[in-house]
Amino acid sequence: MSDEKRTEIGELGEFGLIEKLAEKFSPVHNETVKGIGDDTAVYDLGDQYLLTTTDMLLEGVHFDLSYVPLPHLGYKAVAVNISDIAAMNGLPKQITVSMGLSNRFSVEAVEALYEGIKAACDEYKVDLVGGDTTSSSSGLVLSITAQGVVERDKVVYRNGAMEGDILCVTGDVGGAFVGLQILEREKAEFLANPEMQPKLDKYDYVVGRQLRPRARMDIIHELKDLAIQPTAMIDISDGLASEAFHICKQSGLGVAIYEDKLPIEKQAFETAAEFSIDPNSCALNGGEDYELLFTIGQDDFDKIKNHADIHTIGYMQAKSKGRTFVTRSQNVVELQAQGWKHF
Amino acid sequence: MSDEKRTEIGELGEFGLIEKLAEKFSPVHNETVKGIGDDTAVYDLGDQYLLTTTDMLLEGVHFDLSYVPLPHLGYKAVAVNISDIAAMNGLPKQITVSMGLSNRFSVEAVEALYEGIKAACDEYKVDLVGGDTTSSSSGLVLSITAQGVVERDKVVYRNGAMEGDILCVTGDVGGAFVGLQILEREKAEFLANPEMQPKLDKYDYVVGRQLRPRARMDIIHELKDLAIQPTAMIDISDGLASEAFHICKQSGLGVAIYEDKLPIEKQAFETAAEFSIDPNSCALNGGEDYELLFTIGQDDFDKIKNHADIHTIGYMQAKSKGRTFVTRSQNVVELQAQGWKHF
Repeated sequence: MSDEKRTEIGELGEFGLIEKLAEKFSPVHNETVKGIGDDTAVYDLGDQYLLTTTDMLLEGVHFDLSYVPLPHLGYKAVAVNISDIAAMNGLPKQITVSMGLSNRFSVEAVEALYEGIKAACDEYKVDLVGGDTTSSSSGLVLSITAQGVVERDKVVYRNGAMEGDILCVTGDVGGAFVGLQILEREKAEFLANPEMQPKLDKYDYVVGRQLRPRARMDIIHELKDLAIQPTAMIDISDGLASEAFHICKQSGLGVAIYEDKLPIEKQAFETAAEFSIDPNSCALNGGEDYELLFTIGQDDFDKIKNHADIHTIGYMQAKSKGRTFVTRSQNVVELQAQGWKHF
Repeated sequence: MSDEKRTEIGELGEFGLIEKLAEKFSPVHNETVKGIGDDTAVYDLGDQYLLTTTDMLLEGVHFDLSYVPLPHLGYKAVAVNISDIAAMNGLPKQITVSMGLSNRFSVEAVEALYEGIKAACDEYKVDLVGGDTTSSSSGLVLSITAQGVVERDKVVYRNGAMEGDILCVTGDVGGAFVGLQILEREKAEFLANPEMQPKLDKYDYVVGRQLRPRARMDIIHELKDLAIQPTAMIDISDGLASEAFHICKQSGLGVAIYEDKLPIEKQAFETAAEFSIDPNSCALNGGEDYELLFTIGQDDFDKIKNHADIHTIGYMQAKSKGRTFVTRSQNVVELQAQGWKHF
């Protein structure tokens, strides 16, 4: 843009760029409890906190309409924001949806997108309250903002984990990444031979994980019923390891995760093997599962130990003990996080 | 996208599309006071209302970086959202900024954009509390959401105007549109002859109106000091006439606007003439001035009649009397609204 110094964004990465930009800003309102740096922003309403989160999805970067049906895209775009509200232990209330549309999109196509948005609004009980609609010179652009609330003494940040806390993950992980590999392969095969019929039946679970992930509001309600207040929580968008690192960094701790505890669904495991990808790597670095990763005090262990959908996968340890991965053969190795690179 | 019926978005237009999509949604939360259809969404917090608004700006559609400096773009992108909060008689508190960046953008370019965002945050006293940063395959995408609050008995909608209310506009109108013509002309001349130096000095006011419009928070504070509660209010993004029509439609009224009352700044008037454009048309349909258009009861007239920056330009009349424009020669013609067409 000029003759002056030019630093590529890739040199800093997404998080580095955000950190650099954010350091010049400091809140002027006492009500601003949290700005950048957690799953949502937090604004003090008195007894309650207002939670705000936003996500931008660009065609060709975040989704490929050659294999993502528009209703699924609409559903997922809402669900990923609801998932951020869940990660603060909050209840979602409202969303706004902004979209840029190239002239490739008909009214019927937009209606198909909104079918999915409506399905998510119905499922998560959120009101669509506004947005912005404009033309785009290049494909579909979606930007969704979600607002929710949480009682002020129930909010859960990334920074509250304590040494000895148990690390839990909901559902199963790695499936969404494996599903993406299937969809990419099918696309390549279709391009090579358009007569070919897609063979997705065998992969229905993992493909569903990629196309239509659910926000785990059910878990938020269950934790409340079980009287469990997580000490730290985050949702898995970038990958379990990367999200665990956020909790470590913000809580000033290390972590130990056990290979034999990672919940990997059978189809995800087998499909990963079919692609010669390490299933553990899918589970730790795959991302887009939108499960919840959280820590609880040891006193709460009995309340969840028999829960079918909450898995204890490790514990928080002193920072000096590092971030470790304990293999089935009891080898302790350094935990690696790759996460997603957007740049 | 399929062989089925295909309706072009242009057939419905932006508002028609939004209406069609919105009709399938109905709020489930009692706290949702207003969804789609005003300057912001409104959520009931008890004594206060939460106001939420969002705007999406796409390179090549909403701005042209060949003549829009990045700091100005950042400032304007925030200001247009603050302007929506102002139009509800509210105070802005927080914004989120999401952006998609193609690899054309360096870290330094993003910092220049954020310089403007910061200038707007400082001026309007809002906290930047989050956002999303991602790569884009096609230029710069900006999506900003602003949140504000208003005491529940002070909120101003578009639907509260009464017959006989006085129609007021702040500042002056038409300048931003004229400024855009100058910038487009300079660009064309530069492309024809890159050696040419831009001649913008003579047009500093109108170019400034286009590049760096201000949200009229000053007026919101003054109205409060004057103990004036507008009966209806909207900000001028699409054009004065189009915005007046929103007030008419939602309040179930007609309007009369007087040609000789339209506040058109001298440079805007002369520059419009230079382009052989009717200055009235710039004032009524130009858009992007981000001034406030509002109605007040006749009892409040004395409080503003000598205000240098609030102009009374007409009054609300019965719906049956229509939407009229009274020329200098006292001819009464039908008021036309062109607004912006995004599709």
